[in-house]
Amino acid sequence: MLTVYSPDHKLRNARTELYGGELVPPFECPERMDYILERIGQVGLGEVIGPEEFGLRPIHRIHDPAYIEFLQDCWQEWEKEGFQGEAIPTVFPSRGMQHRIPDFIEGKMGYYAMAMETSISDGTWEAARASADVALTAQSRIAQGAESAFALCRPPGHHSASDLYGGYCFINNAAVAVQAFLDQGAVRVALLDVDFHHGNGSQAIFYGRPDVMFLSLHGDPRHAFPHFLGYADETGEGAGEGFNHNYPLGPGTPYATWGEALKDACSRITAYAPDAIVVSLGVDTYEKDPISFFRLKSGDFRDYGRTLAALGRPTLFIMEGGYAVEEIGINTVNVLTGYQDA
Amino acid sequence: MLTVYSPDHKLRNARTELYGGELVPPFECPERMDYILERIGQVGLGEVIGPEEFGLRPIHRIHDPAYIEFLQDCWQEWEKEGFQGEAIPTVFPSRGMQHRIPDFIEGKMGYYAMAMETSISDGTWEAARASADVALTAQSRIAQGAESAFALCRPPGHHSASDLYGGYCFINNAAVAVQAFLDQGAVRVALLDVDFHHGNGSQAIFYGRPDVMFLSLHGDPRHAFPHFLGYADETGEGAGEGFNHNYPLGPGTPYATWGEALKDACSRITAYAPDAIVVSLGVDTYEKDPISFFRLKSGDFRDYGRTLAALGRPTLFIMEGGYAVEEIGINTVNVLTGYQDA
Repeated sequence: MLTVYSPDHKLRNARTELYGGELVPPFECPERMDYILERIGQVGLGEVIGPEEFGLRPIHRIHDPAYIEFLQDCWQEWEKEGFQGEAIPTVFPSRGMQHRIPDFIEGKMGYYAMAMETSISDGTWEAARASADVALTAQSRIAQGAESAFALCRPPGHHSASDLYGGYCFINNAAVAVQAFLDQGAVRVALLDVDFHHGNGSQAIFYGRPDVMFLSLHGDPRHAFPHFLGYADETGEGAGEGFNHNYPLGPGTPYATWGEALKDACSRITAYAPDAIVVSLGVDTYEKDPISFFRLKSGDFRDYGRTLAALGRPTLFIMEGGYAVEEIGINTVNVLTGYQDA
Repeated sequence: MLTVYSPDHKLRNARTELYGGELVPPFECPERMDYILERIGQVGLGEVIGPEEFGLRPIHRIHDPAYIEFLQDCWQEWEKEGFQGEAIPTVFPSRGMQHRIPDFIEGKMGYYAMAMETSISDGTWEAARASADVALTAQSRIAQGAESAFALCRPPGHHSASDLYGGYCFINNAAVAVQAFLDQGAVRVALLDVDFHHGNGSQAIFYGRPDVMFLSLHGDPRHAFPHFLGYADETGEGAGEGFNHNYPLGPGTPYATWGEALKDACSRITAYAPDAIVVSLGVDTYEKDPISFFRLKSGDFRDYGRTLAALGRPTLFIMEGGYAVEEIGINTVNVLTGYQDA
């Protein structure tokens, strides 16, 4: 399987994450990619190529241009104010408040944030843009006939909605790739999110549309980030009603239970008969992940890779989360080899 | 003028505030009270008494009981999770997200937060409750015939809505006092907020009601916290239409401009003919305040105290913000002596 990767992800190298009331080194760190690349080499998954540049047009198909402009300028505007730390807002439009966009950068950040653990730092925009190019390059290979491809994206994307960043995400790489498939002639695309966390951004982006089926297996939002989306009764709206499927799962969920949910999701995908499948691949479902609560073992990742292969559709894997850095390479590549060897 | 004060405010002694991407010692600190008490003594403003206990009933008249329960339990629930820092959430219900209340404490905090600079720490609830008792005790003295009284509240309250904390505020002391006046027979109460920051909580609480006129002079929300409320076109809704008056003022506003806005607010109060006036008294309008941008000088506080006295109504002063600690005593007491000597 072809892997697309850009070293520009290293430009995203924030020093701080707000976690448990402290500023700690971010769980979403550049070293994650090293482990995955190393493992790709070890198992001989296939060629690793760099991305082509696609410009802003495919990004604007998903994201509000004003939001993209904000991402481009945020760090410079923050720095100009003389703040000493990385860019983190403190206030946001809460219940009963306005949704006007303030002029002052801290307010503007609060307007565009869906969570505040994620510091914006120098280079964040450049890395996010390269990450979208990685996704689009892998997508283009499938559009050209490849059966599968792996977009080794960083930063991840699935928490980012049309005009929201947070949860380590800035551009929704998976959504951008889904839209590229559709813009190139696909009629239906399935977006399957197996990251531990609900893909709230992806859901929000496609919630009213029947041309994208979104399915997500994730930690029950009553207990897990992002807490405010991902319930089972969120089934889509308007023309999109019936095309959104959430599988919230509780603390300690083992693979037996998770795998049953995946089978149900796969049967829905089969019935939908999509022209392509995009998989938001997070491996923070792993039992030793430091910020999650599922109990998948390394072998389980291989197993569900086979399940995905059985769908028999062109499949684009997009890297999302996974933070147990030592094992992230093994588990990620297990999904891909499980798929490839099936 | 009588001052009501409780040393229990010292129980609110958070170590951290999220500011400029760093965790810094909170601007809203116990020492603020020492400066004000000292100045009250120096000028001989009048007697200083402790609060009576009023229980939760008058607090529940303003705040959602589930929110109050959350405040009571928050620190213990947070500590139980083993987090190392003080309690700060990272995720909240942003645009297009659910408004269900999560079970996990960090999500629950995000649900009830309107800003995340404010750490919740051990003793926060106890101090907030005592602060409400301070406000209610001062209110009761006016109800019993005093012309004026000063509730030296800490923590402050005006950013807190019915079920939101943030901006250093947990219980809206001013709103609780306003409601107490009404519950004791007042027909109309004016709530005048002269803190630098918009009193978003107070506005939200009374937005649909004609029995409370809310007026606020504050930093333009395009540039100043809380950013998402306080625009001039927010004039009330339903039966409350026409009873909400915002005076957003830009960076560098001098007293000449501020005083004109106050005069306009006072003329509205006079026309409203309230039975009592509650003043949300923040002195962060001071030119040297570290987190604000107006340009009032110490003498100006005395001047506007006289303006308030000219309204000729029973007046309850409730302490809100003000962070230039050395001068906070002088400026606060200048308002009160300006009022008293008029």
